[in-house]
Amino acid sequence: MPNILVLYDSVTGHTAKMAALVAKGARKAAGADVRLKSVDQASAADIRWCDGIAVGSPTYLGSLSWRMKKFWDEMQEELWGKIDGRVGCAFSSSGGWGGGAELSCLSTLILLMNYGFLVFGVTDYVGKKLTLHYGSVVAGEPRTEEENASCERLGERLARWAALRGAPQKIDHQSL
Amino acid sequence: MPNILVLYDSVTGHTAKMAALVAKGARKAAGADVRLKSVDQASAADIRWCDGIAVGSPTYLGSLSWRMKKFWDEMQEELWGKIDGRVGCAFSSSGGWGGGAELSCLSTLILLMNYGFLVFGVTDYVGKKLTLHYGSVVAGEPRTEEENASCERLGERLARWAALRGAPQKIDHQSL
Amino acid sequence: MPNILVLYDSVTGHTAKMAALVAKGARKAAGADVRLKSVDQASAADIRWCDGIAVGSPTYLGSLSWRMKKFWDEMQEELWGKIDGRVGCAFSSSGGWGGGAELSCLSTLILLMNYGFLVFGVTDYVGKKLTLHYGSVVAGEPRTEEENASCERLGERLARWAALRGAPQKIDHQSL
Amino acid sequence: MPNILVLYDSVTGHTAKMAALVAKGARKAAGADVRLKSVDQASAADIRWCDGIAVGSPTYLGSLSWRMKKFWDEMQEELWGKIDGRVGCAFSSSGGWGGGAELSCLSTLILLMNYGFLVFGVTDYVGKKLTLHYGSVVAGEPRTEEENASCERLGERLARWAALRGAPQKIDHQSL
Repeated sequence: MPNILVLYDSVTGHTAKMAALVAKGARKAAGADVRLKSVDQASAADIRWCDGIAVGSPTYLGSLSWRMKKFWDEMQEELWGKIDGRVGCAFSSSGGWGGGAELSCLSTLILLMNYGFLVFGVTDYVGKKLTLHYGSVVAGEPRTEEENASCERLGERLARWAALRGAPQKIDHQSL
Repeated sequence: MPNILVLYDSVTGHTAKMAALVAKGARKAAGADVRLKSVDQASAADIRWCDGIAVGSPTYLGSLSWRMKKFWDEMQEELWGKIDGRVGCAFSSSGGWGGGAELSCLSTLILLMNYGFLVFGVTDYVGKKLTLHYGSVVAGEPRTEEENASCERLGERLARWAALRGAPQKIDHQSL
Repeated sequence: MPNILVLYDSVTGHTAKMAALVAKGARKAAGADVRLKSVDQASAADIRWCDGIAVGSPTYLGSLSWRMKKFWDEMQEELWGKIDGRVGCAFSSSGGWGGGAELSCLSTLILLMNYGFLVFGVTDYVGKKLTLHYGSVVAGEPRTEEENASCERLGERLARWAALRGAPQKIDHQSL
Repeated sequence: MPNILVLYDSVTGHTAKMAALVAKGARKAAGADVRLKSVDQASAADIRWCDGIAVGSPTYLGSLSWRMKKFWDEMQEELWGKIDGRVGCAFSSSGGWGGGAELSCLSTLILLMNYGFLVFGVTDYVGKKLTLHYGSVVAGEPRTEEENASCERLGERLARWAALRGAPQKIDHQSL
């Protein structure tokens, strides 16, 4: 019964829509407890609570938005070094294909690894020409069935991997 | 009158088709001398000759193919530290959107920077939802007008920036 | 009792020395079964066997060596999409600090994510000014106690996370 | 006579010290006009003014600080698509080797490429085990001669490449 947090920043609403789909996917996992929060609503307590996290941001200049970066930069004193071993993944909406959504996911995965998360992408294709090897990416708003499936698949896999991880929140980091 | 090299590896023919379009774009620049070569045909002399280079590879596991990597790894003894200051860019065809084409371009740009190239992407959108901020990317074979325009634009911009760079091949690296 | 594979390429012997230290660290985990293999010795069977993997390569041009890339590129037909959910990490020796060892680890982590691995870095500092947030990195040969500790810590953590993952090799990918 | 901007964010003073050294290096280039500004002091006018830029940030979670990201995110409306073709590079101070300084430089180079800058690293070694292939990196405060030389070399090379670029500020982007 993993605790899953879907954390997102959104300006146009595109990433928010992706986030709702990721949360929907996570809820498909039996017993998953899912929280969907914008970066303005979330707190350190949400991060501590979760076994698995999906972090979404619009693609700005090839990385996550400054708002999302600020959230994690400022959380360091309270959380860094205390939440190692959880599972994380990324999603992003960019203005167009080739516009940096993969790089934005990468910047998010790097950030999560820095906090000790185990991060992943998904090998599956969700359509003839759409996959999510480094997280879900959409150009603009998610509209097609395939794009929706990409986001849901990410959430589902996250809940799956988080459940398999056992209970990372019970790991005593001091003993690592 | 810049010398432009379009260097590519291709297995399915998709990246080869992109390469031909990049070369076509480069030829639009007045006076550009353009060579189009596969990684099996090219040599150190081609690299020395060029003022600007576009390097294309299929996306394999989020980076350039081992064949293209081998070409540059083995060229180090002869060329590394001797060709600084030229201009470079990247292109890649992947199996699908979200499949790592941006990351493959990034791995190519990192490689080129290591050799001292000044690397770039293109800010322009070539269609409603297609751009080439870190190089041209296509899912599968380039088919649409927009995808063709992406490749041609990359080549055109490369020739433009290489022409503006003056004559980097005349720079004496020892004096840097 | 996780199965741990330490897979490396080495030309000068520096990365081989790192690999031995990573394996030593992994063996500290109670019950871990550890294989140490060069890229010339390893096969698909080794990859299938492992629950966790550490992949090391010399830093060449900001990414892993073409030999290591070839190994994984050519393994795709046999293994890709069949080994999702395992744990992976990276290490690299470069010519100097600022020479691309972090980027080489990043290229390895990207490759492993493409295969469905959950990848991680380590938050711990192993010395006053040495950490391994994205894998173990050394300039040249590992010589100091801190550098040795970095490699051992990586192996130890890998065994730890792999043990917590349960038995990913028993996951039926078709049911994901 | 290139215009060079050294733009930095600094919390502990380490990156500020690096910035001063980069500016010192840039001034070695005959005729270079150099501005040294913190992210709080700089404006869009400074960006428009420069032919070449060096952007420095402390390494936070493997990328540039949220303050520096905010500066560029918010500058998009005014500057994006209007300053293509200039030259850029990066520098960063992290808590320790392996702590993400290379990745922080990479995130900066990605950001600059998004704005149309041609970005570069430096092939030279400035000490037995120190180089700046993707920008200058230091663990903590720059103290040694080699670390100082790394920063100065970056500034010097930036001025050199910016001078060779001709006058990018006179390029009419509409005609590209």
